[in-house]
Formats: sequence, structure tokens, C-alpha cells
Amino acid sequence: MAKTYKVQFRPDEASAEVPAGTTIISAATKAGVFINSLCGGEGVCGRCRVIVRQGTTSGGSIEFFTREEVQQGYILACQGRVESDLVVEVPPETRLTGVPEHVVGEVPFLADVSKLAGRGIRLAPLVRKTCLQLPPPSLEDNVSDLQRLEQSLGKAIGSKNFQMGLKVTRRLPELLRKADWKVTAVTGHRGPLTEIIDVEAGDTGRRNFCVAADIGTTTVVCHLVDLRDGQTLGRVAKYNSQASFGADVIRRIIFVSQSPDNERALREMIVGDLNELIRELTAKYRLGTGDISLISAAGNTTMMHLLLGLPAENIRKEPYVGAAYNPPPFRAAEIGLQISPRGLLYCLPCVAGFVGADLVAGVLATGMAHADDVRMLIDIGTNGEIIVGNRDFLVCASASAGPAFEGAECRSGMRATRGAIDHLRLLDADHVLNYSTVGSAPPVGICGTGYVDLVAEMLRVRLIDRTGRLNREVSPRKIRPSQHGELEWLVVPAAWTGNNTDITISQGDINNLLRAKGAIYAASAVLLKALNMTFNDLAEVLVAGAFGNFLNIANAVFIGLLPDLHQDRMRFVGNSSVAGAKLAAICSDCYDEMFDLAARTTYFELSTDPTFMDQFVSACFLPHTNIELFPNVMAEMSAGKTR
Amino acid sequence: MAKTYKVQFRPDEASAEVPAGTTIISAATKAGVFINSLCGGEGVCGRCRVIVRQGTTSGGSIEFFTREEVQQGYILACQGRVESDLVVEVPPETRLTGVPEHVVGEVPFLADVSKLAGRGIRLAPLVRKTCLQLPPPSLEDNVSDLQRLEQSLGKAIGSKNFQMGLKVTRRLPELLRKADWKVTAVTGHRGPLTEIIDVEAGDTGRRNFCVAADIGTTTVVCHLVDLRDGQTLGRVAKYNSQASFGADVIRRIIFVSQSPDNERALREMIVGDLNELIRELTAKYRLGTGDISLISAAGNTTMMHLLLGLPAENIRKEPYVGAAYNPPPFRAAEIGLQISPRGLLYCLPCVAGFVGADLVAGVLATGMAHADDVRMLIDIGTNGEIIVGNRDFLVCASASAGPAFEGAECRSGMRATRGAIDHLRLLDADHVLNYSTVGSAPPVGICGTGYVDLVAEMLRVRLIDRTGRLNREVSPRKIRPSQHGELEWLVVPAAWTGNNTDITISQGDINNLLRAKGAIYAASAVLLKALNMTFNDLAEVLVAGAFGNFLNIANAVFIGLLPDLHQDRMRFVGNSSVAGAKLAAICSDCYDEMFDLAARTTYFELSTDPTFMDQFVSACFLPHTNIELFPNVMAEMSAGKTR
Repeated sequence: MAKTYKVQFRPDEASAEVPAGTTIISAATKAGVFINSLCGGEGVCGRCRVIVRQGTTSGGSIEFFTREEVQQGYILACQGRVESDLVVEVPPETRLTGVPEHVVGEVPFLADVSKLAGRGIRLAPLVRKTCLQLPPPSLEDNVSDLQRLEQSLGKAIGSKNFQMGLKVTRRLPELLRKADWKVTAVTGHRGPLTEIIDVEAGDTGRRNFCVAADIGTTTVVCHLVDLRDGQTLGRVAKYNSQASFGADVIRRIIFVSQSPDNERALREMIVGDLNELIRELTAKYRLGTGDISLISAAGNTTMMHLLLGLPAENIRKEPYVGAAYNPPPFRAAEIGLQISPRGLLYCLPCVAGFVGADLVAGVLATGMAHADDVRMLIDIGTNGEIIVGNRDFLVCASASAGPAFEGAECRSGMRATRGAIDHLRLLDADHVLNYSTVGSAPPVGICGTGYVDLVAEMLRVRLIDRTGRLNREVSPRKIRPSQHGELEWLVVPAAWTGNNTDITISQGDINNLLRAKGAIYAASAVLLKALNMTFNDLAEVLVAGAFGNFLNIANAVFIGLLPDLHQDRMRFVGNSSVAGAKLAAICSDCYDEMFDLAARTTYFELSTDPTFMDQFVSACFLPHTNIELFPNVMAEMSAGKTR
Repeated sequence: MAKTYKVQFRPDEASAEVPAGTTIISAATKAGVFINSLCGGEGVCGRCRVIVRQGTTSGGSIEFFTREEVQQGYILACQGRVESDLVVEVPPETRLTGVPEHVVGEVPFLADVSKLAGRGIRLAPLVRKTCLQLPPPSLEDNVSDLQRLEQSLGKAIGSKNFQMGLKVTRRLPELLRKADWKVTAVTGHRGPLTEIIDVEAGDTGRRNFCVAADIGTTTVVCHLVDLRDGQTLGRVAKYNSQASFGADVIRRIIFVSQSPDNERALREMIVGDLNELIRELTAKYRLGTGDISLISAAGNTTMMHLLLGLPAENIRKEPYVGAAYNPPPFRAAEIGLQISPRGLLYCLPCVAGFVGADLVAGVLATGMAHADDVRMLIDIGTNGEIIVGNRDFLVCASASAGPAFEGAECRSGMRATRGAIDHLRLLDADHVLNYSTVGSAPPVGICGTGYVDLVAEMLRVRLIDRTGRLNREVSPRKIRPSQHGELEWLVVPAAWTGNNTDITISQGDINNLLRAKGAIYAASAVLLKALNMTFNDLAEVLVAGAFGNFLNIANAVFIGLLPDLHQDRMRFVGNSSVAGAKLAAICSDCYDEMFDLAARTTYFELSTDPTFMDQFVSACFLPHTNIELFPNVMAEMSAGKTR
């Protein structure tokens, strides 16, 4: 056994005992302190900055730090290794905490259950509670207890293929008699079978709740739904704790493929996140975990694999094939999810390795697959997923946008949590006119919507040209070489920030942002071209995902992230993934329909399309090399409206 | 903690450490030595005779023993309590061992699989193995591994509603690739769903075996079936170890209802018995337990409850309602059965508290529910179950015959194991002409078929009259008062027996045997009367159960156990329960049909029929008060053919 040391984390007052040579980030995970990381521990993102206050460490480059920081004890947690007892401070910007406010909800029109009837959707949850007053047995009517239950239940819900587990069957005789033959059957939808998942004494029908979850690479969102009426009671969210092991799915797939321990660790993290959100909801609405009989989960393909413990390794290797895109319902307890012990987890179906259940849920929620008009749904996240179609066809593609808009890959980037600049206007090339931050806190960084505004405004004031290159002459005072040698523009000086650090945007940051927006636009354009269509053929472009409803749509068009359509034809749908998960939960027909939707969706592989690279390069301009595709932007720029 | 003592059992060389005051029978169970008991430990059957060779005991009446036996140390194991370290000898007649030869097999015409096609039965086992060569994935064909499997499997077996458990799904990606996409899917029939219970590398189709079990109150029979062709490879049987806790189902129900520990103990015994028989079969045919993917089990309603751990208590209380008569398939491992870890246990359906899956299996096996002609199937066991019907109707009843024909309730009664007299003829009222024993061993007792012969022969030589009363004048030398004061006839003197004990038949024994045969005949007669039929309306009477093919049918008619029909219309079907369990296993349509059979069978409650008691009293005569119902017997008796 190697010698072990105690590592204390501040201000958490949490600690862990680890062998000599362990990385600080591993020690933190063991202590339950979640540290931000984008690169998954490769030492290249520079996010996992911590301060060693006492003790000795080895390893860790100084590339990411100023001289002062190195003297203060700054080190990368993924590189620094424990060589003595340590006291480590985890500064706020390194923490994987806070509430991801922007992605917690769907838009109102998707949340309004009263509109479902108009869409021909009946309320018939995946897990139902049916109260039954059974006739007591007699010599003339002496079928077994199970048959008595099934006969009454069959009459009540019009089903006949029932299945009940051994544990419940063993409890049944005593339960029926103690309850004086009045019981509530809890039934789960399993295709042609109806599973009697539990039987409860008396009428418990008023306590039947569901958690609908959207499991994103960056954020996890849970809604609490009353299955009696489909109303959403509460919405909560948190960052996905797996982010300590990489900001994007590829890094996490590599990590879990390295060992069964790694796989288990990431699985326990996402299960832990879900359980934490479920506890938050049950505490707030004074429910017992037993009142939650159902979890309906959407998410990208990799997240669904990591949740279920399915091997994800092949997703990242050509031909990008996952283990299962259409899993049946599982006992939630088998996964470790803390709801009713016999409650079910319904994972919604995925389409391909990089087109997940989140997109299929969005198609369901928006109803686009029932319309005559053709619509495009763009889900902007670490991975951009795009689908085009109507009642006749559905074609989708996936664009590896990278996590720039999720606050990664940019020096001052951060998630949309407390202190993140989420909106911003420039007065001129030297001055910010105004900005807002999440939580109205002093600024500590910039989140995705802030960067969209910032790039658009920098273009307007000509701080950058249409290639995105910083023009030093426009702001010789604020454009300066960074310590890494590239140019950067000072957005907010350290004196005004919440962490006493300059907020900047560098040439490299801008390039990353342009690649991200270029990938999404190019994917949309290539997909339409393959269909012999243009953006003008679309009735609407629906925008879902990380930006929530907070994106400044004019700026998104101005930088060429979104196509230049009339704003009547652009619509935010917020977190349409969780909206679809809810719809599936309250309507078993909708759940079944999702499997049809997934099956009839054609996946278009961009990586093998010969035109994609050209389109991508063109789309990395502002807004595009062919500005005529953006007539309104062209008009604004040529009218000299840019400042 | 009470003081504990060590109890050694001989000749087993097994021992157990138990607290002072424990009964010897409990100590024996703990040591794995199974002792015969009929009354379930109430001290009234006198079967659990053991000899204390060393040490001190308390309790235990001497009622059942001779002076010599008491001096030798004989005691009832259920009454004697451990008060010091003990050495206990368990004599052969007390042991619950030996092979129940009589009930191990079905009759040849039910065993012949080649006849199935003629009955319109196709070979389609409940668990199938299908070898699939999957197309490897490509960018053009990149569905998930699970979908790839399901698509190929769907084409191969014409099913589409699949369900696969999480554990198998997790293993799938690596398995498919290591096996170079050639795999064998193991699928289980679950009504409208097909469960993919396992996936194996390569072609494993040639190793797919089933164990079909008949779980009787007294005996457990297992057949090994090759599911490729439906052929029976091996047949084994043993006594049900639960017999230590009562010879009949009522005593066992009372025992298990007393505590969860009791319930678990009896469940573990029957599971242990099945596992022992499975091991015997797999060893003999050089199979791994993994090659057995399916157990198909028939048995009476109580035995099915005890196997599954379902509460049986209400079966014995009016209105005699069990927990479940139609259980779905369960994972065999969940019950503790040692076959393939993911193999399934299919329990066949029961009809009522005292009409079990064994009878329904018999109806299936004999094909009587497909015929125009009306047949009666009589299953003679501890409980007599009778069913009458054809394609249009099925009506059944249950007669509590008691265990007299299973070797219980008679002084010299024993099961049909080594040394049991199974056939016998008398020369005259003083002499046995000849007899045969099971295993051709020296006689130690009389089994059911032996008693049928004995009672018939005693009537013929007028040792008893038609009321069953012993006529001392006919054999003053051999009819004598027993030590309990009643008359008995000496069948075989101690000097000629294998255990140096007289084999006798007492007036009480005869009365018990008459009640047993009377209950079965009366039940048959009342059931027919309720249908406005007589025995003459039956195309055939089919006889199944404990007597196997060893019953002397003429003697069974002579004593009035069976109706007096021409022997062409009487047919033995042997263990039709295990035959039906096999048929269900190799033909999923037959399995499904059994649930229809059970559902359309009307249960006729004899206990509330006002004519039953009269019929029963009449049927306790030899052969019946109304001898005109037995014309051939009448002819034989009046012709003075009786010796």
C-alpha cells in the first residue's frame, strides 16, 4: 500500500484520504467536491484552478497562471499530485456549482397542459393508479387473489395482458384483506403488456407523481409533474457532476472506457445528480419518494448510455454505433434512482450516436412531425443537433459545435451561473455600454448568450472584422497581447469583477466561438441542401437548448449562428427535451409515438458529406462568406448602422 | 443463549448443534437428515421413529412402541427433545429417502414426441435459441446494437415486441464484436412480449434443455428434455423433503402460516429438492447448469404456492382462495433454482385451491379437451382431483382422500420405495400366495397399490365383509388384537420382513383405506350426477397419479375405487402432470392454451353439495352399498369366484 495523505478542501470543510501521487481532482471527487474541468483531466483547458494553501504537491505546469498566481499557490487540480497532507482552496470560478437558470424550463406554450386536448393528446400516463373496490371472494366466486385483481383492473382500464412481479404477488393476499378489498393498482405501460408494478391499500390515486428529466452533457433538469392532471409543479436544475471528467461527451466516453471503475464513477455521478434534484423536488412539495412512481428521461445518446451503464465506447468510433437506442422501461431502483422502490424509469429513444432522445423529445413536444409545413428544430448544446421535417419525413444531423457556447474553450467563459455576463452592449470600441449578469452579481465571466452579444457588438464597433480578426488599431488601449502572446480585448477590468481577475476575450476565444457557430449553421445548411431546400422553404426555425429563451435572436442572426429569417419564423422552444419527456410521461400514446418518430428519422452523416467542409469554412465568417444569405445583416452593415 | 448440544445422526454421520430443548426432528432437518412424518410434528402419526443410542432426551409418549422398542431407545423424533449431546440412529423405515419409482414417468403414448404433429402441435419451445449472423454496422446502417439484434431476430422468429434486461444489454456491444456478429439469442415467451433473456457468442443452439417438473405433495419428478426436438433424455424423482413437516397440504399450510421462518424453510426444501434432481440430470447427461434455460413446473395449488413463496394460508379457509393461480414466468434464479442464471421458471396455471396445475397439465397432455367424446381424468394422490369434459366443457372437483394410498395412515403403510409390497395375492384367509416388493427387497411395509390388492383379496377370501369389518372367525390364527386393542390381520410375520417387524393391516387401516377410496369414487359420482351423466356416458376414464401404471385395475374396481367399466375404457396415463409440463415447455401455444383451459374449467365445490355425504357413505362400502353399480364385481362375487 502506498502512503496515504489527508487532503482538506476549503471552504467546503470536506476532506479525503488518498494515496501519495493521487491527483488533486481525484481527491476532490472522493471528498464530494466537484471541480470544473473541460478537458477531462488532460491539463489543457486550465479550468481546474485550485490554490494549495498548505503542503507539498508535484506536477502541474504553470502555463495557465500569472507569476502572482503561481506564488499564491495556484495549480491545476488535474495535474497537481498529492505528496503530503494538503489544504486546498477551491475558488468560486473552479466550482461546479450553481443553478443553471437558463435551461430549467420549457416555453409557456409547451408547458400548457390544457392545450393538449386540442392536439388530440389524451391524458394516459405511463404509470397509472387505479382504485378498485374488489368483490370479496365467496364459494361461488373463488378465483385467486391475483385473478380477482386482474379482472377488476381489466374492466377499469380496458387491458388484459397483465404481468406482476413475485414480490408484489407475495404481499397481495394480506394486503387485499387488510384493505378490505379496496386497493389501488399501480400499472406501468410496457408495450402490449401492462405491468402491475405495485398494489397499495385504499385509494392512493391522488399521490401519483412523475419526474421528467433532461440529462444534458452540461446540465440536468428535472420537472415534477402531477400525473392526475399533467400539471408541472416544480422545475429544478443543476450542473452535471460528470463535468469534472470532461466538458464534452467524447472526453467522457474515453474516460468511462478506460476502466469499469471509471464507468461506475460517472454513472454514480449522474444518478446522484438526479437523486439530488428529486430530493429537492420532493422536499419542496412535501412528497415521499414513494409518491414518485415514474421517471421519464430524455438526453443525448451518450448521457443515456452513461445513465444506464451501457458501454458508450463505440459511439465515438466510426460507424458511431451505441449499445441501445430503444431501451425498454427498467425498474428505477435497478439504476439506483430513489423513487418508489418499484417505480419505473422510461428512457426515451435515441436516433443515432449523436442524435439523442433530447431531439426526439423536442420533435414530439413541438408537434412538428404532425404538421404539413416543414420546420427545423435546432438544439444548441455542446453538440448541435438539427432536425428538419414534417408529417412525411424527418431528417437529422449532428454538428460537433464544441462547448464554446456552454462557457468552455474561452478564457473567461463560464456557464450561465451566478456572475456570468449573459447580455452585453458596447458603447464603442473601448467601452461597454451596459451588461447584465446572472443573479445580478458582480461579473466573473461570460456565458454563451453573453458571447453571442459580445461577438455581434465587437463586429458592429469593428473591433473585429468579418473574419473575426481583432483590429488593434480600433482600440489600442483595450486590445493588448495576452500573457500567452495572442491579442485580447479587455471586456471588464479586474477592479470591477467579482474575482479580481480581468474578463477578456482573446483571438483564440473568438476563433473558437466562430467555429462553434459555423458548425451549427453549416450543418443546417448542408442538411437543407441535401433535401433540395433552403431556409426560405421552412415555415419556422425552432431553437432549443442551452441558450434557453435568453438568446438575443438579432445578435445570433448577426453573427450567422442562425439563418436570417423574419423573426416571426424564428421561435424559441426552450428546453423542448424536458417538455417531450413530460409529454411521454403523461401520455403513453406519445411515448409509443416517440419510438415511431425515432425509427422514421433518417440520420444524415455530415462527416462523410463532401460539401460540409466548404460550408463550414464559409460559415466561420461573420456572418458568412456569402453575405447575401443574410440580407438583413447586409442591410444593417451597409447602412452603416454598425457603430 | 440456551445451552447447545451436538446431535449426531447415524448412519449418516451428519450432525447439528442445537439449543437444549430442540426437537430431534428439527435437529435432523438442520443436519440435512430428512425424517418421515405424516402429521407434521403433532405426535399423532407415529412415523418419525428414531433410536436414541447415547444421551438424554425429554418428552415423547410411548404409545407407538412396544416394550422392547422403548427399552432399545425408540422415541418419536417430533416429540423427543435434546437434553444432552446425542447419538441418534434413524432406521430405514423412518427415512425420507429412496426413489419413488412408480411416479417417475408418463405412459409411452404421452412420451412419444413424434405423435405431436398428428395432434396439430408444433415444436416451438417457451425458451428458444436462435442463431443469428448479424450484418456488421456501417455508416449507412448504424442502428444501435440492440436494434440490430432485434431486427435480425424479428425476421428469424416473426416477432417484434422484444424486451431485454439491463444486464444483457450492458454486455451486448462487447459480445457482438468478439463473436464477430454471430450470436445466439435466447428468447422467452411472455405472452405478447418476447423477452431476450440472454445472448450468447456463436451458435449455441444445440445446447438448449428444459427441466419439466411435477411437484407433488409426496414426490417430486423432473424430466430432462432436449428443446431442439422435444425428446425426453432422462427422468428422475425423489420424495418431497417437506414431508418432514406433514404428509398433506393442510398440515404444511398450517406450518408455513406460523412464521416467515417456517415459510422459508419449506420453500428452501422444495427448491433444494428440485436443485438436487436438476444436478442429478445435468451430471448424468454431462450438461452445465447454463444449458438449462427453462423449468416448466406443474403441481398442486399448494405446492406451487410453497415453491413461489406465495402465502398459502387462505387456501385452507373457506372460500379456499389462493394468492395466484396464473403466475407469469419468473427468473428461475429469483426462486433459487440453479439453472442458467437468466433462465425462466414457467409455473403452469391452477384452477382452484384444491385443483392444481397438475390436473390442468393432465388435461393438456391427454388431449381430452380437444375431443368430442367426454372423458374423466382422475388424479389419485393425497388429494384426489377429478375432471370431466371435452371440447365444450370442463368441470372439476377435489376430493380430500387423505394420504392412505400414499402409505400414510396405515400401520404398515409406506411409500412405494425399496421393500414396499406393491402387489399381493392371497392363497386363503391364512396365507399370502405371493407378493412383490419394490426393488425386490425383503418386505418392510405396504404401499398404495399393495393395499388396493390386499383389500380386494381380503374381500375375496372373506377376511373382511362388504363393510370392511375383519371377520375373526375366518382366520383365528392370523386375526388378533393389536397392542392398541383393535383387530389386525398379520400379513407378513416379523421373521420374514426386512426390519424384523410384523407387517399387519388393522381394522383402523382398513377403515382409512375405505374412506380414501370412497372419497374419490363419491367425488366422481357426484360430479357426473351434477352433469346429469353416469359413468356409462364416459368414453374413457383416465387414471393418473401416485399409483402410476402399477395399479391392478381389476382390484381397484373390485374395491370400488374405480367405476366398473370395461377395461378398454379405463386407461392409465401415468404422470400426466409432468407430461403436460413437458408439452407446455416444447410448445408455447400449448402453454398459452393451458391458461384458457384453466379459465374455462368450472370448479364444483363438493363440500357444499348436499348429496356428497350420502354418496361418500355409500362408497365406503365394498365396492358400494349399491352393488348394481358394479355389475362385473357383482357377477364375480355371486359366482362364488371369491376365494
